[in-house]
Amino acid sequence: MKKLINSPESVVDDELHGLEAAHPDLVRVDFENHIVVRADAPVVGKVGVISGGGSGHEPMHGGFVGRGMLDAACPGAVFTSPVPDQMLAATRAVNGGAGVLHIVKNYTGDVLNFEMAAELAQAENIQVASVTMDDDVAVKDSLYTAGRRGVGATVLAEKIVGAAAAAGAPLERVANLCRKVNANARSMGMALTSCTVPAAGKPTFELGDDEMEIGIGIHGEPGRTRMKLAPAAQIAELLLLPILEDLPFRSGDTVLAFVNGMGGTPLIELYVMYNEVSRILKGKGVTIGRNLIGSYITSLEMAGCSVTLLKLDDELTQLWDAPVHTPALRWRA
Amino acid sequence: MKKLINSPESVVDDELHGLEAAHPDLVRVDFENHIVVRADAPVVGKVGVISGGGSGHEPMHGGFVGRGMLDAACPGAVFTSPVPDQMLAATRAVNGGAGVLHIVKNYTGDVLNFEMAAELAQAENIQVASVTMDDDVAVKDSLYTAGRRGVGATVLAEKIVGAAAAAGAPLERVANLCRKVNANARSMGMALTSCTVPAAGKPTFELGDDEMEIGIGIHGEPGRTRMKLAPAAQIAELLLLPILEDLPFRSGDTVLAFVNGMGGTPLIELYVMYNEVSRILKGKGVTIGRNLIGSYITSLEMAGCSVTLLKLDDELTQLWDAPVHTPALRWRA
Repeated sequence: MKKLINSPESVVDDELHGLEAAHPDLVRVDFENHIVVRADAPVVGKVGVISGGGSGHEPMHGGFVGRGMLDAACPGAVFTSPVPDQMLAATRAVNGGAGVLHIVKNYTGDVLNFEMAAELAQAENIQVASVTMDDDVAVKDSLYTAGRRGVGATVLAEKIVGAAAAAGAPLERVANLCRKVNANARSMGMALTSCTVPAAGKPTFELGDDEMEIGIGIHGEPGRTRMKLAPAAQIAELLLLPILEDLPFRSGDTVLAFVNGMGGTPLIELYVMYNEVSRILKGKGVTIGRNLIGSYITSLEMAGCSVTLLKLDDELTQLWDAPVHTPALRWRA
Repeated sequence: MKKLINSPESVVDDELHGLEAAHPDLVRVDFENHIVVRADAPVVGKVGVISGGGSGHEPMHGGFVGRGMLDAACPGAVFTSPVPDQMLAATRAVNGGAGVLHIVKNYTGDVLNFEMAAELAQAENIQVASVTMDDDVAVKDSLYTAGRRGVGATVLAEKIVGAAAAAGAPLERVANLCRKVNANARSMGMALTSCTVPAAGKPTFELGDDEMEIGIGIHGEPGRTRMKLAPAAQIAELLLLPILEDLPFRSGDTVLAFVNGMGGTPLIELYVMYNEVSRILKGKGVTIGRNLIGSYITSLEMAGCSVTLLKLDDELTQLWDAPVHTPALRWRA
């Protein structure tokens, strides 16, 4: 196992110390409750937006805490759900009196623990809405999931609903927007290599030197097919065609195209993939209105990529373009 | 060789097509001359700033073309110097009448070719200044270099002098600023794994399953020592102590600390490294005034990292903070 870490036991805390040391203007880390919180939380009168899940997917979610995106993140151990106490502490920390949205990726542990946290928070008279993300078209059920897995659309949802919350939208609208993003987004991923959970010390799965896995989950869960390596153009088709058919996306649609790296894939390859995605969509009459290219929802050092398409309208485009300032995403109009 | 590419022959052009398709508001690619140019170049009256070098280090340099940083980049084949014709074409394309700065990383091919391009441009009455970056403290001479190699400080120099040029500084000041950044910056890198040049199809060097290379070059050139894997805290010392001694950086100094990923290293590990860098600098009385954490000067899919420290003063800090909008770096105050 080759990693820049001190020990499997300390890796998540070391990373969180680094995040806080690097971005004290944006985040603080509450090590007692093990949560990443927006530096100036709670913002009175604003809907709080939180998410969380296992670590190992950085920058998701801690790197998205700041202004115009998440108010808090609950990092679990690597590839392990956070516990309800973390989620409850995060909910309390960001409650500015207007309620709190829980954005939950569809993995059984995350879903159950966020449900329990929501009940506990409501018992304290904090209004909570929960939205489960399940945008991965690869498989129906999976190793840790009943139904589809939540993947890349979560990044887009956190940006978009974070913008709405920053603009003063009430909880019901923020939650409905999150559902709208999930309903209009589809994703699929692939791996060239496995990844190694630090505490396990060996690769999560084995993949031959000439093989790739299409439809991989972000924890290395099995996908649709294992096959021989193929050129980028063919890989892009294998990911895009199921995405396009599923919603379905149609000629005339405008989308946000998100080409995501799995952690071990360099940017040169992501731009090669983006070029193929762009070419295929053009051929289908689908316009790319916005794009995001980089490693935003990762699987430790896995080599590979995922593609997410989100069907855009004026509302979603405007919220995507709104200012954001977090460790991992930052822009102003 | 496991990569998301179509073929070793097409990888650089495919990437450039992707860059242009993704960011037409910022860059255009001139495929005849094989250069990446700011979309609205030349900007009349502004000093043009260009750089270039072998591909395989993305986002450097093409991802830094846009507003407030580079006006053009000349990408060579992977790990291969661009040719003088590319550099001359880039110089012409960005010449707005105020002269052009060439930022050159110290590799023999780059230096010779940029020298020739500068002569050709001057023969066309374009005023050219050249600055060679050589911030890598690892080794005195190297596989492709007489003297020290140019590495991470190049990213910082491109941002800082790009801001000065955008603010209307004349060529002499822009060039002097670039020299100032180089004089006040030191870097060192390390690798956990090799990388594979697509056209070669096999790893550039061999490294044992329990080994790392300290002082690695960005093309996989040998470093100072090959040793057993160590914890992040020790790796940070092995990189930082030679950097600190070399300038030297002293107690009371304020620095920009840049923790860079080599391409195959995920963000969780870079934040673990940043935490160690931050801890060591604190112990030495050195304040981190600004930071940059991410994969900005890469070596294909190499796993590893580099650290660059730049001693800051008010002038450099102000130029670092100035607005920038490129595919890879984007912010406003």
